[in-house]
Amino acid sequence: MATLRDLYSDEKTKGLDTNFGVDYVINYKIPQEDRASAEASFVQLIEALTHVGLTTEVRRGDKSSVLVFIKIADKFLADQVYRSRLQDWLQGARTNTADKDLSQALRDEPVSDAERLRLVYLLMVKPKNEGGAGITPESGKWKHVASIFPLHNHSFNRQWIKRVSTKGQTDENDLDEIRDKFGESVAFYFAFMQTYFKFLVVPAAAGFGAWMFLGQFSWLYALVSCLWSVIFFEFWKQREVDLAVQWGVRGVSNIQHPRPQFEFERQAEDPVTGEPVKIYSPIKRLQTQLLQIPFAAACIVVLGTLIVTCNSLEIFINEVYNGPFQSYLAFLPTVILVVMTPTFSTVLTKFATRLTEMENYETIDAHHAALVQKEFVLNFLTSYMALFFTTFVYLPFGDHLTPYLDFWRTTAQKITPKDVNFQTQEFSINPERISKQMFYFTVTAQVVNFATEVIVPYVKRQVFQEVREVQSKMSKEDSAAKIKDQPEEAAFLERVRNEAELETYDVTGDYREMVIQFGYLSLFSVAWPLTACCFLVNNWVEMRSDAVKIAISSRRPIPWRADSIGPWLNALGFLSWLGSITSASIVFLCRSAGKGDGPRGTPGSIQAWGLLLSILLSEHFYFGAQFVVRLVMKKLDSPGLQREKKERFMMKKRLLEENLGQGVSDQAATPGIEKTEMITMQALEDEARRISTQGHGGAEEAFWLRQRGMAETIQIGRNLISQVSRCIL
Amino acid sequence: MATLRDLYSDEKTKGLDTNFGVDYVINYKIPQEDRASAEASFVQLIEALTHVGLTTEVRRGDKSSVLVFIKIADKFLADQVYRSRLQDWLQGARTNTADKDLSQALRDEPVSDAERLRLVYLLMVKPKNEGGAGITPESGKWKHVASIFPLHNHSFNRQWIKRVSTKGQTDENDLDEIRDKFGESVAFYFAFMQTYFKFLVVPAAAGFGAWMFLGQFSWLYALVSCLWSVIFFEFWKQREVDLAVQWGVRGVSNIQHPRPQFEFERQAEDPVTGEPVKIYSPIKRLQTQLLQIPFAAACIVVLGTLIVTCNSLEIFINEVYNGPFQSYLAFLPTVILVVMTPTFSTVLTKFATRLTEMENYETIDAHHAALVQKEFVLNFLTSYMALFFTTFVYLPFGDHLTPYLDFWRTTAQKITPKDVNFQTQEFSINPERISKQMFYFTVTAQVVNFATEVIVPYVKRQVFQEVREVQSKMSKEDSAAKIKDQPEEAAFLERVRNEAELETYDVTGDYREMVIQFGYLSLFSVAWPLTACCFLVNNWVEMRSDAVKIAISSRRPIPWRADSIGPWLNALGFLSWLGSITSASIVFLCRSAGKGDGPRGTPGSIQAWGLLLSILLSEHFYFGAQFVVRLVMKKLDSPGLQREKKERFMMKKRLLEENLGQGVSDQAATPGIEKTEMITMQALEDEARRISTQGHGGAEEAFWLRQRGMAETIQIGRNLISQVSRCIL
Repeated sequence: MATLRDLYSDEKTKGLDTNFGVDYVINYKIPQEDRASAEASFVQLIEALTHVGLTTEVRRGDKSSVLVFIKIADKFLADQVYRSRLQDWLQGARTNTADKDLSQALRDEPVSDAERLRLVYLLMVKPKNEGGAGITPESGKWKHVASIFPLHNHSFNRQWIKRVSTKGQTDENDLDEIRDKFGESVAFYFAFMQTYFKFLVVPAAAGFGAWMFLGQFSWLYALVSCLWSVIFFEFWKQREVDLAVQWGVRGVSNIQHPRPQFEFERQAEDPVTGEPVKIYSPIKRLQTQLLQIPFAAACIVVLGTLIVTCNSLEIFINEVYNGPFQSYLAFLPTVILVVMTPTFSTVLTKFATRLTEMENYETIDAHHAALVQKEFVLNFLTSYMALFFTTFVYLPFGDHLTPYLDFWRTTAQKITPKDVNFQTQEFSINPERISKQMFYFTVTAQVVNFATEVIVPYVKRQVFQEVREVQSKMSKEDSAAKIKDQPEEAAFLERVRNEAELETYDVTGDYREMVIQFGYLSLFSVAWPLTACCFLVNNWVEMRSDAVKIAISSRRPIPWRADSIGPWLNALGFLSWLGSITSASIVFLCRSAGKGDGPRGTPGSIQAWGLLLSILLSEHFYFGAQFVVRLVMKKLDSPGLQREKKERFMMKKRLLEENLGQGVSDQAATPGIEKTEMITMQALEDEARRISTQGHGGAEEAFWLRQRGMAETIQIGRNLISQVSRCIL
Repeated sequence: MATLRDLYSDEKTKGLDTNFGVDYVINYKIPQEDRASAEASFVQLIEALTHVGLTTEVRRGDKSSVLVFIKIADKFLADQVYRSRLQDWLQGARTNTADKDLSQALRDEPVSDAERLRLVYLLMVKPKNEGGAGITPESGKWKHVASIFPLHNHSFNRQWIKRVSTKGQTDENDLDEIRDKFGESVAFYFAFMQTYFKFLVVPAAAGFGAWMFLGQFSWLYALVSCLWSVIFFEFWKQREVDLAVQWGVRGVSNIQHPRPQFEFERQAEDPVTGEPVKIYSPIKRLQTQLLQIPFAAACIVVLGTLIVTCNSLEIFINEVYNGPFQSYLAFLPTVILVVMTPTFSTVLTKFATRLTEMENYETIDAHHAALVQKEFVLNFLTSYMALFFTTFVYLPFGDHLTPYLDFWRTTAQKITPKDVNFQTQEFSINPERISKQMFYFTVTAQVVNFATEVIVPYVKRQVFQEVREVQSKMSKEDSAAKIKDQPEEAAFLERVRNEAELETYDVTGDYREMVIQFGYLSLFSVAWPLTACCFLVNNWVEMRSDAVKIAISSRRPIPWRADSIGPWLNALGFLSWLGSITSASIVFLCRSAGKGDGPRGTPGSIQAWGLLLSILLSEHFYFGAQFVVRLVMKKLDSPGLQREKKERFMMKKRLLEENLGQGVSDQAATPGIEKTEMITMQALEDEARRISTQGHGGAEEAFWLRQRGMAETIQIGRNLISQVSRCIL
């Protein structure tokens, strides 16, 4: 296993310097009770792999598995690459068709690690009728295939981690390298992080300024933040396109990988390619999709009740209750929240997964997008609901809360022994509450998150490894003699066995974290303007810890392609829009709660029309800004789109040249051509002669023969002109 | 001239049955005082036309002009068509490249009238360096060229008018025919009319229902109307794309015709084609564009003052003033409005034209769009301002108007002789006012408009023609002997002379009328739900009168291409959005003005928060509906886009076949291929043998040679599996 120490030490660690040319490793589990079926299925596995052109080797895994090593034969790789590139071109994902000569095509555009690994993976998992081996890990016939993973390139990883930990910023080259090793899907995440990090400087500066000079709840900061989020969103949309063109993946989201679990009702002809496609009635799917409404309602009720209960309990304990153990009891609501939220979330996520499966999507992307959407609803609720409660219930209607707090008072009195002295104080709204909550979400929660995401797994892994080593030492005594690694492979195999134990890296989790973070900034940062400063620090660490997470704590991800950040883009747009509404509300509610004509905290001073007007103005400011920014962005013409247009144009011109010859192509490319006048005149005279000799004497021919050629027309025209002017006189 | 009588009579009228093969006619004016220069310029004209391959004939025009008849030589036409189609393909406006063989290409896709006329026109007006004759009517060197126009195809026109007047609806075939004769630009107008007319049935029915059962100011009708406008807008956007694909013009808006008046600062290389392009600093243009803001302000002030003055005067006369001549004076504000509005509009339109010229656009389309935008502001103000005044000033703040009405009272008293009995009555707000205004705009104004648009020009033309005939009879006596038409051409030439006198048809005016009409429906129809019914009747007539206008009252338009209704689409979207706001306001203001707790008409009952909430809800209903409709539209996949994708795919596949042969193309087109397993196995074994014979003894090679071939891997794997399971036991 690569540890942080390995990465930082220059001496080559045993087993890390080479991958033995292995493309993929299959971790094949042998359950004790089902050995016979596992063995039969293993034979099928090796046969299936060999039949699609993959070389295999088998070695001992951990104590209940074997490892199958897979390599593609070079000749087949070239074939696969060429075919895949042609198909991309056919589907519109490439502007250039590959060269006719196969080896020339590979020389023009060398195969990156990511392309190689992606194609080999597809070869293994594609259904048999599409030329693949049809292996579906952990399901059906292949239930013993625990995982299929590529091996880390540790020398690259070492350099990469070194670079990100010494350099201030990731640049274009870094992104290109990430793309070559881990595929566009991961590279897009780092590109997004890079852009987001750079953009964060603006709200951080504005927030710091606002915190110093304007205080909280500044409408000026709210406007700046709203404008910023619009510009960031539109900029990223363009940057995404530019990157996709640069990486040659624009349009790959249209090339969809079919979902093996998809169940079809009938087959029909694809309207574009004319091939048979499987169809599932969209009406049926829509019916299932409508279940999302009760699902969302259930989420709101379950998580809402939990959050509202804990929040009101917390308000009661902190601001009303004054009895014994107050300082200990203050932790009670937080403990309940911390314990219950993940529990409920897990259950609801399971529902979401089940629902998405029932929706039965044709493609992996559609399934993934639908799942992400549902999970986003859950994340949205767990992350922001407490703050929404404070903003839209506690602050404006705080005094109406008193009867509900009385419920807690009664409960508290019931469970308190009668002899204990029980005290309460008068309740009053505290507008600082939202800022305290924001501080919790932006600082405390991010630190906790970093710990659970990076440190805990690392420590856990180290401990488990120690345990395993002790165990294997003990077991060696009885079975070591039987299965022994070749000495030159031993270190390598040890490392592969460790990599097999690692978690799968899923970029979705990282995106989610960033999008939810963007949400805090856009929705609530006006309540605590230092938000962006904290996020700036957090993300500096995050970018590095994510790199470490991929390189050390996870198996190497399958290098999928992507041409955007996918469903997260919509989530960003939604949060940015919602931000214009919440920011305006917070500014209005908290400023009027702060001053007002009533006593501090009395919402009598809050006018409904003022709130509505603030929201209306702020939202239209958002739409106006969006309109202007889009207009400007469109005028600027993205370099990526321009490059794509140019490539397309050049490709067509080349095709014309090949088919029609240089001359015609040039003529067609320029808007017009200059003709030699003599040729034209000659042709016209020929035409006139033709008519005059063939003439049938019709009125039409007579009409055109009154004046033969230019000279006569001019002569007669002149006569007419002089006659006409004489008429006038 | 073709009159309505000609069109309806079956007997062929003299001069209407043939165009003598004429493509274009140039009406060349010979001013009395400038005969010599006109003559010199005439010679240049004929030379220029001949040099680009056009045959010319000259004939006498009216008393101060000659007519130049133009025909393209067939050989050149084929050449032009082929080159233009290739260029379309290069620019991405065609999916199929033309056949290599020129005559085959023309047979595959015959040249329509519109294509022929468009190419001939371009040949005449394109600059010399782009292969055209560079003729710019009425400017510079060509100031004597009064007009260039194609001749009507009267037999088609006769059939067309007959068809539209007997059939209930225009169908796809009609649209295709319009497109073949008058070009896509006109065809899109009729397609828009057709779709709009069909859609109008829904609000007409809803409006009639609302009028019967719900009365005015129904929020239910407002919702239906809002939803309808969203669906109509989104549907039309898709229909536009479908039609563009069907007519093979999708993307032609990217092929821009340069504006001859454009002044450039420097030349640069086109980023796509690499050709030199002329550049004008966008910063400078932006500075000029910013002048639009004071221009719009000036429009609002000038037209606003006029409309507000006349409206308040009208309110005073109708609702306060009770003195003598009241019934006559009631017409005074209308008279002022009718006289002054066109005057002011004309002046402001001149400003708009000047401003657009100063903005110095590169292309005709950009110039046109900018001009349309400015004119739309003017039209918007003149059409809707009176209704906005009623909705947002008169209804909510009517009682605050009293002091301003006092101004009129004082004025009236001043100019009234003292002995006349002068009476006023108490002022009270009348919510019916808005409905009365709506009735005026939807019924009276449309009837007046029809009269001025169709009947007046027709009568005027008939009178002028009589006058001219009398004049020419008189003048014949002295000059008839000198210039006499050939008898077989006389009728034809007479007809051409008449066509030269006609107006130019500009589709912009017709679009404007429809868009403004859509505005009444979307913005204010809730005040008078029968609006859509009136428009339904009006548009039934309008569609026919527009056809008559093109066929009889106008010169045949140059058949330009278009792939959408251009700048009007944005105007429609804007009006549809604004409608969600105004409808909500009208419903809220008029309902609360109607009932309320105060006396009828007292706006005390109007709550600011209620109004804001109505607007907020209605606008979000609009956005929500738009979101859902777009989602559904996207799912449905437009047939046009699908067809385009298919064409593109097939074209690429054909190219692959031509270049690489059938087999490769098939392989690439299908997602994968089935391999013969034996070949694969053979190759793998070859590879293994190669390694074993070449083997350098490296660890990597040793690793892959432990198990040679599938059989060995399976064998060793089985051993491992049994060992592993024994270990566990």
